Amino acid sequence: MALFVSVEGIDGSGKSTQARLLAETLRATGREVVLTREPGGSEGAEEIRRLLLTGDPGRWSPVTELLLFTAARRDHLERTILPALGRGAVVVTDRFADSTRLYQGERGASRDLVERLHAAVIGREPDLTILVDMDPAKALARGLARRSGEDRFEEMGLALQARLREGFLALAREHPGRIAVVDGDRPEAAVAGDVAALALARLP
Amino acid sequence: MALFVSVEGIDGSGKSTQARLLAETLRATGREVVLTREPGGSEGAEEIRRLLLTGDPGRWSPVTELLLFTAARRDHLERTILPALGRGAVVVTDRFADSTRLYQGERGASRDLVERLHAAVIGREPDLTILVDMDPAKALARGLARRSGEDRFEEMGLALQARLREGFLALAREHPGRIAVVDGDRPEAAVAGDVAALALARLP
Repeated sequence: MALFVSVEGIDGSGKSTQARLLAETLRATGREVVLTREPGGSEGAEEIRRLLLTGDPGRWSPVTELLLFTAARRDHLERTILPALGRGAVVVTDRFADSTRLYQGERGASRDLVERLHAAVIGREPDLTILVDMDPAKALARGLARRSGEDRFEEMGLALQARLREGFLALAREHPGRIAVVDGDRPEAAVAGDVAALALARLP
Repeated sequence: MALFVSVEGIDGSGKSTQARLLAETLRATGREVVLTREPGGSEGAEEIRRLLLTGDPGRWSPVTELLLFTAARRDHLERTILPALGRGAVVVTDRFADSTRLYQGERGASRDLVERLHAAVIGREPDLTILVDMDPAKALARGLARRSGEDRFEEMGLALQARLREGFLALAREHPGRIAVVDGDRPEAAVAGDVAALALARLP
């Protein structure tokens, strides 16, 4: 019964909305669903999130930032994700390790270091990753319209978002069995229908 | 001119006092000395320190704790230690990576993982490490007498302190060129004299 789903995409792609809608759809079928997010998703990881997403954008070097994201992920995995999967729940997380592969990899911590840390202390991938793909100009406009006080990553501009999109699509090509690409540039309900179908196909 | 010195030892061994006295002695010779400590020693690392040393002692798993210590050390190294060494200063730090090798290694994160993380993101050892060696029963009594609100590691009892002491002494045998053992169970000034002589022997 247990299923571990991550929803990924650039800022403003609508992935958080799609994660929420997926959780609602699966709950409506009677399943226990844990909807969570990164960075955060557990008490300790939310404290680390505050260190990461508030204050001066240059306060952490890329490698220190990677270590903090990895610490938060380990806590999230141990305290929220694995216990939920252990009791047969579906876990839907808004971002997981693919975001770190892209965001930290693009900002100065090498992809190789990201992968080595992941292998050493996380070592777990989602059963299914849904990549909500979106034209970065549209995504950026959406992201900047939704100011949350935690928008460090949304202030980095169109060129970065375009590189991140390409990076996510390249990851999807590397992991075709795990990562499914959904066209996010359509009405919310149409995207949600595709996302739900992908998740339901992995469930009994 | 630059010299990177760490002072290590179990809680209550007097290492913090010895670090301070060493800094004072070296300053009196006209050198620039940066006296610092771990976890902490830079603005970001002090914030991580607060996550590590306050709250429920069981709030972080050993691996998450190791990641947070390593993040704090990376920030301390980048923001405080390397810039000071770069301008020719002497850096004296109260604890560095040997404490992580012992404390985290003893509490469930494997020594192998500690070493792999260190090699991947720190990769720097002090030029000289002074191990203030102390009978754990005496050290424990001192440590518990000095309640600071940050005494998670001091509340773990005599058996742990005895294992940690043995671990520090084993590290000193592994790294005889870097780690010098000083008998801490003597009057403060006598210990300080030995510590200063060890540091001055490494300076021009």
